[in-house]
Amino acid sequence: MTLVLSIEEQREILDMKSVLDALEILYREQAVGRAVTRPRSDIIAPNQTGVYGLKTMDGVVPAFDVGAVRINSDVITWPKVGASKRRVKVPAAPGNRWVGLVLLFSVSNGEPLAIFPDGYVQRMRVGATSGLGAKFLARKDSKVLGLIGSGWQAGAQLLAACEVREIEKVVVYSPTRENLLNFVEDMANQVGVEVMAADSAEAVAAEADLVLCATNSIQPVFDGTLIRSGQHLGCIKNCELDVNAFKRIDRIVVHSQDTGPKHLVMEAAESHGGDRGWDESHGDIDWNGVPTLAQLVAGEAEGRQSSTEVTCFANNLGLGIQFAAVGAKLLQIAREKGAGHELPTEWFTQTVHP
Amino acid sequence: MTLVLSIEEQREILDMKSVLDALEILYREQAVGRAVTRPRSDIIAPNQTGVYGLKTMDGVVPAFDVGAVRINSDVITWPKVGASKRRVKVPAAPGNRWVGLVLLFSVSNGEPLAIFPDGYVQRMRVGATSGLGAKFLARKDSKVLGLIGSGWQAGAQLLAACEVREIEKVVVYSPTRENLLNFVEDMANQVGVEVMAADSAEAVAAEADLVLCATNSIQPVFDGTLIRSGQHLGCIKNCELDVNAFKRIDRIVVHSQDTGPKHLVMEAAESHGGDRGWDESHGDIDWNGVPTLAQLVAGEAEGRQSSTEVTCFANNLGLGIQFAAVGAKLLQIAREKGAGHELPTEWFTQTVHP
Repeated sequence: MTLVLSIEEQREILDMKSVLDALEILYREQAVGRAVTRPRSDIIAPNQTGVYGLKTMDGVVPAFDVGAVRINSDVITWPKVGASKRRVKVPAAPGNRWVGLVLLFSVSNGEPLAIFPDGYVQRMRVGATSGLGAKFLARKDSKVLGLIGSGWQAGAQLLAACEVREIEKVVVYSPTRENLLNFVEDMANQVGVEVMAADSAEAVAAEADLVLCATNSIQPVFDGTLIRSGQHLGCIKNCELDVNAFKRIDRIVVHSQDTGPKHLVMEAAESHGGDRGWDESHGDIDWNGVPTLAQLVAGEAEGRQSSTEVTCFANNLGLGIQFAAVGAKLLQIAREKGAGHELPTEWFTQTVHP
Repeated sequence: MTLVLSIEEQREILDMKSVLDALEILYREQAVGRAVTRPRSDIIAPNQTGVYGLKTMDGVVPAFDVGAVRINSDVITWPKVGASKRRVKVPAAPGNRWVGLVLLFSVSNGEPLAIFPDGYVQRMRVGATSGLGAKFLARKDSKVLGLIGSGWQAGAQLLAACEVREIEKVVVYSPTRENLLNFVEDMANQVGVEVMAADSAEAVAAEADLVLCATNSIQPVFDGTLIRSGQHLGCIKNCELDVNAFKRIDRIVVHSQDTGPKHLVMEAAESHGGDRGWDESHGDIDWNGVPTLAQLVAGEAEGRQSSTEVTCFANNLGLGIQFAAVGAKLLQIAREKGAGHELPTEWFTQTVHP
């Protein structure tokens, strides 16, 4: 049977620790060449309201007996919110919903194992990847987490950081005060540590041992001159850190050496081409030769060498193998708990040669 | 609602003429840059029985309001059948079934429109692509179709050729006599023309105006010295035609200038690497600058210039946009006829940001 799992069902059964565990195994597999990932590609085409994006990435991890395909079918706009320009996906599908899917297949016999919306796993994998960066790069005695951003992704950053370090206090800044206060209240209820709103990125930087950016801004939200000795930095998009930050960092580790997704843009959508800039905003940085998270986790690349080093985990691009690893974990737990609902595998298989 | 359509339901409602029509519109769109396709990629990894392959391709065609992702999840072996080596996909999924899927999404609002097994559309798109090659390259007075191969794909070649030319007789050769005779009987019942078994590829070549190869051989099945003046040739894999054939051809048009899919091979599966050779078997031919089917259909590339030219349509690689175009047509007809069964779109969409 092919399992369908709603976001609510996923949220109920898959916690941050499970995701961190699955990804740590994954990176050890990747480091020895036992995982293969096909870099993300984006087809960008015009539609009536602006731009349509069809994004896909694939990965196979035999150790988990899973191959995964992640698909996003997005209606995209670029509004300006306050001073910063954002890239916003519109929930344009019926019922004001977003469209992203993960499909899991068996490496042993090819069968479709599961199909489910991607949003929860995406959030958890972004958080956990950042968390593993912090686990292997941040000072062991880090106590204060600084967060820039108070949206959907910021929460997962907080959960992951609290799993990998004994965080005692979280200081958060985001420009829309109402969102910030709601986030602080919500997260304080979820984790057993103090969560406080800050008035500025400066205030966050002044206090934090780790500074993690998790926004949908396509312009810098963190000024490198604020960095203090010994801090660890993270971001979900490289453009969140400004060029000064990259200059100040002593040790950087990337998720992938790919500089960005492969874009295939229809000419009629080219007018929006400049707005894709967030992917290439630090295009002048050559990631070749920069250690990867897989190398770091496997002990093939050095972690922090002193308490004063400024470290950074960047280029947190999604990889198909992450959806294979986290998807396999989700599937395992769902089967144990009887979660989700099953569809006949015959709907998704065939008696004719493909 | 998201439509699920079985192979049987697809076969009932989608005929070759509809597929030819949809693809001809597609190529005109592609020729003017109004269709974007992401070249096929294959992840190849080891499994317990040999090799697992996860193959994907994507395409967006705004004119049809459809984006498509095609996924194949294959267990692959390379047995030797008679004198020739073949690449065989094992129906290893529960119930001895193959696994290939097409997912269709709306360009307007992103919603998942349909999900269905790919085998029937795959067969029809290979046949119709070859058929369009013949429509624009074969002699208008072509009466005799020669076929090399008697499997699943060969039937679609026959159907397509009979749609684009007034074929009066079909001559077929394949090495396993029983398969050949079954095919001849079966196809004679489907089309209103004489279908005959031949004893050899030589016998086919001696009589045919068009020679179409449609086998799963990864070695040549047609010897170029057999070619007669004015013939049109086609193949579903370039390696079916030998090097002599490519030397003898006066005018060649390709489906895509890509020399082959992008393979990402896990080292432990490298022992099978040489067997992927069918993709690169004519790797010494440079397709750059060779006209594409899109250019030919749109009148941007010249077709046949005389009754004596030897023409060829080659490199019939699958393109994501074909699954978008044929999928859109299938969906349109299915809606008109109320075919398939609908699943709640909410299963495949989400209220959280992906």
